[in-house]
Amino acid sequence: MIKTEKLSLSTKGYCHIVDITPEIKNFIEKNKAEKGVISVFVRGSTGAVTTIEYEPNLEKDFEEAMERFAPSARTYHHKKTWNDDNGFSHVRASLVGPSEVVPFSDGKLLLGTWQQVVVIDFDAGSRTREVFLTLIS
Amino acid sequence: MIKTEKLSLSTKGYCHIVDITPEIKNFIEKNKAEKGVISVFVRGSTGAVTTIEYEPNLEKDFEEAMERFAPSARTYHHKKTWNDDNGFSHVRASLVGPSEVVPFSDGKLLLGTWQQVVVIDFDAGSRTREVFLTLIS
Amino acid sequence: MIKTEKLSLSTKGYCHIVDITPEIKNFIEKNKAEKGVISVFVRGSTGAVTTIEYEPNLEKDFEEAMERFAPSARTYHHKKTWNDDNGFSHVRASLVGPSEVVPFSDGKLLLGTWQQVVVIDFDAGSRTREVFLTLIS
Repeated sequence: MIKTEKLSLSTKGYCHIVDITPEIKNFIEKNKAEKGVISVFVRGSTGAVTTIEYEPNLEKDFEEAMERFAPSARTYHHKKTWNDDNGFSHVRASLVGPSEVVPFSDGKLLLGTWQQVVVIDFDAGSRTREVFLTLIS
Repeated sequence: MIKTEKLSLSTKGYCHIVDITPEIKNFIEKNKAEKGVISVFVRGSTGAVTTIEYEPNLEKDFEEAMERFAPSARTYHHKKTWNDDNGFSHVRASLVGPSEVVPFSDGKLLLGTWQQVVVIDFDAGSRTREVFLTLIS
Repeated sequence: MIKTEKLSLSTKGYCHIVDITPEIKNFIEKNKAEKGVISVFVRGSTGAVTTIEYEPNLEKDFEEAMERFAPSARTYHHKKTWNDDNGFSHVRASLVGPSEVVPFSDGKLLLGTWQQVVVIDFDAGSRTREVFLTLIS
């Protein structure tokens, strides 16, 4: 069985982290899937997918680490292409990557207790983000 | 065919890198699978999965790069939440990510000669790590 | 349906980014696949897979970020093992990771308009890179 679902998320950018674990659980349950994997993919080159302990202080820590890695105040070559100020967003997104694959068994995601699947919007403003879940069971 | 197997690894934390390539090969062989992919996922928000040339000097290099990216001596906001000292572990794990998907053909993993599939325990102490392998064939 | 295809790419190393989106589209089309995912995996421990807005200025930005993260002029412990000068290549490749999984629907990749699937050769010289596409549909 292969099923796809699209999530639309309202995101604020600047390392906005959104927990999509409830939506993934719901997707598995409504398909009555027992065993398999969920592929999670964010559309767009300034978004990323990973897992994290989703709590506000760690969100700040992650943002600060990203700021050290690819500072938002730096001038990027990308600005010459489109006059966009989101070079830092692209660099961070390509580093973290747009996809993860998460297994489930007995209809339950095999996550840790403090591990959530998240989408990160690294862009320089608010937008609607499309995320694709593909269930392979 | 979809099959899941759980590995339990004794890990020491602090960027402990464990080569699980033999376990993955064994999993493919015992299922007599010919062609497909293996999804590898580590449970827990301070672990990660990637590939590396698994040799001790490169392990040190990777650990030093992680130390520059998210220093272990730094104070993280995460400490305010649980009084935990593993903020660096979480930040590193979310960066590297919890999953990879590795193809195989003719029953053999399509890895390079000096490329191993590894689980990294970034946490601040020893523990038992659960890793899930899902064979899709 | 599970199908595998190997791409052979001529790469120059030093953060050479190659857009393989056309090859992936072609692979889906010639298999007349409607819905599913493509697993993309690069063989070798100095290569990586991610998505990026594939344009020359951003390629420079990404390379510069990688240079800050794992400088090519630094001496790595890995040199002691094989007298190789590509410690920086390995560290970068393990960080970015060797795989991504990309969904498609109605025979079309679900990428953003400015989002391409790329292979990055981080090694310290030119070579032929093998990339494996696995279609799960």
